[in-house]
Amino acid sequence: MSDLEAIKSSVRNLKAYTLSPHRASVKLNQNENPWDVTAAIKAETLRRLEDRKWSRYPDFIPTSLHERLAQFASWTPEGVIAGNGSNELIQALLMVTINDRKRVLISEPTFALYRQVTTVLGGDVISVPLNKEFKFDVDTILKVTERSSIDVVVLCSPNNPTGCVLSDDDLRRLLRVAPGLVVIDEAYHEFAGHSAVPLLNEFDNLVVLRTFSKAMGLAALRVGYLLAAPKLATEIRKALLPYNLNAFSQTAAEVCIEMYGGELMPMVQRIIGERERLFNALSSIGGLSPVPSQANFMIVKTQIPPKSIFTELLKRDILVRDVSSYPMLDSYFRVNVGTPAENDALIKALKEITAAPRTSDE
Amino acid sequence: MSDLEAIKSSVRNLKAYTLSPHRASVKLNQNENPWDVTAAIKAETLRRLEDRKWSRYPDFIPTSLHERLAQFASWTPEGVIAGNGSNELIQALLMVTINDRKRVLISEPTFALYRQVTTVLGGDVISVPLNKEFKFDVDTILKVTERSSIDVVVLCSPNNPTGCVLSDDDLRRLLRVAPGLVVIDEAYHEFAGHSAVPLLNEFDNLVVLRTFSKAMGLAALRVGYLLAAPKLATEIRKALLPYNLNAFSQTAAEVCIEMYGGELMPMVQRIIGERERLFNALSSIGGLSPVPSQANFMIVKTQIPPKSIFTELLKRDILVRDVSSYPMLDSYFRVNVGTPAENDALIKALKEITAAPRTSDE
Repeated sequence: MSDLEAIKSSVRNLKAYTLSPHRASVKLNQNENPWDVTAAIKAETLRRLEDRKWSRYPDFIPTSLHERLAQFASWTPEGVIAGNGSNELIQALLMVTINDRKRVLISEPTFALYRQVTTVLGGDVISVPLNKEFKFDVDTILKVTERSSIDVVVLCSPNNPTGCVLSDDDLRRLLRVAPGLVVIDEAYHEFAGHSAVPLLNEFDNLVVLRTFSKAMGLAALRVGYLLAAPKLATEIRKALLPYNLNAFSQTAAEVCIEMYGGELMPMVQRIIGERERLFNALSSIGGLSPVPSQANFMIVKTQIPPKSIFTELLKRDILVRDVSSYPMLDSYFRVNVGTPAENDALIKALKEITAAPRTSDE
Repeated sequence: MSDLEAIKSSVRNLKAYTLSPHRASVKLNQNENPWDVTAAIKAETLRRLEDRKWSRYPDFIPTSLHERLAQFASWTPEGVIAGNGSNELIQALLMVTINDRKRVLISEPTFALYRQVTTVLGGDVISVPLNKEFKFDVDTILKVTERSSIDVVVLCSPNNPTGCVLSDDDLRRLLRVAPGLVVIDEAYHEFAGHSAVPLLNEFDNLVVLRTFSKAMGLAALRVGYLLAAPKLATEIRKALLPYNLNAFSQTAAEVCIEMYGGELMPMVQRIIGERERLFNALSSIGGLSPVPSQANFMIVKTQIPPKSIFTELLKRDILVRDVSSYPMLDSYFRVNVGTPAENDALIKALKEITAAPRTSDE
């Protein structure tokens, strides 16, 4: 009788990915859409589901959603895979490509999941740091990708948590030299007004990931999608579990796409406007320096320790993300753009905190 | 620039798991609850979600569901993991245990996913056939497990598609000799009135899987759960993606547990009663021999080719599962227990089909 010995050592040595369960009225820590989807979207979703039996499985392949996603993203339905959040799709992609000793290149600081899943699968993570301006160090990424037999490159663009974007020219250069696949996680592309999708027409080794959890306002329902060459999509589907997307989320996603222009795009525009206002306001506060971002969040350098900023904001019922344990970010916190009122509350609170006399332990 | 070369050969050689998209009014092919959850369950789920923002992430760990599941299953909340269907949980378990050359023992014919996921992960499948009565060949399973350094044993009990159950005594013997983990997939345990859960108190290497997709009537919403020793659950959680369970399904599952006794258990009792009636009716039809089952489905031996049975039933708007490509089952089809009216329709149709003069191509 064994128990933990059955677990692979790469897993046993791994720390679990966690998020401390703090709560606050002003929640600016998960890069969510602060407004929620509209009443019209909710009503239409519930109307379509009224006669749907909960006891019957979803479609084996969610064809109607795939068709809408293809049209929405200007790609072919055969190259679309919807999933239970984009996390599931990056996991499926790594499952079909990575095993012991295979190499995944990422550029840190970035979303923690790429490293986590690669490690569970027994692959090696090769990390190229962002440069000092928190932008992609493209020359080094190219050099390492070409020379170190990298099997998969995963870049988040705009990058979480820094907000930098990989240009089309740089991505083209990378796709040309990469001996394996290049994955661009576009979770925040709506806020950048830029997408790598057109390059799918030129490159068979490109994979684009997207999510409904940010601009699309469906974080509670877990919907993501992957865009790739149809042949590649067929292979990735083999690692996906049947019926991975529940019927409720599938329907909500279809409604969000159909109503995007009228109901959701105006929110995206307002978030982009508020991002600029928030950036300017934070820049004017002594002791704080926000980093320009093309996403719906930004990192902010602080002279007061980030942990103190986090705690003081929480006392004022505002939740931000302490990213000080990330590489390069020991004096930074991350905040996402909220509603105008939430951003006002954040600015006011940070002015108070930075103006207060420093206590001796700082 | 490569494309499919990046895909592991174990995956490229694998056929995708598919289900042909036939539709019929009488649907007896996926072992679902034929009645749907009740109006009371739906209304209470929607009521609880009324003020829930769709734009906000679910809880990092669905604690309130885990607590209800623990109470429902008589186990500890620290040893419970809820997931997006039990498929996700078997995948997570295999991800933390299996890589190249590791061995998974299964007993075929059985649910196809165990073989599929093991193969994607690069593990080897060791298959011990069921015996001629379609029961587990326990002596051989024990012998192979002990002698062939099997890392994980996965048995479905009651087994899909044969309906046989592993006894507690046999499971105890297996748990004592197994050098690794033993997984019992209890997707259909409600129909057998038997569970391996009490043995969790005795064995740290036992893992039990359950689902809300069958007796609990939530196939559309994708909820499953895993029960294991807390230490083992902690390791398995490392392969689970954050926010794997959407907020809607989580709430529906909580309501189903709370209302199980009054709303769902009576359906399970009726299905068990109908199973016996259906078995007797099919036994009395010339050319058909159903196999006794403790699940909500049964396999049926047929003198007419199963493909013809499938086609003839589909013409009569009835959908069953052609399992003739499974090992040992070339002259069998599978049918799940429907409502009394659906079962009557099936019986009537099968009487017609078996009584009809045979055409020359059979």
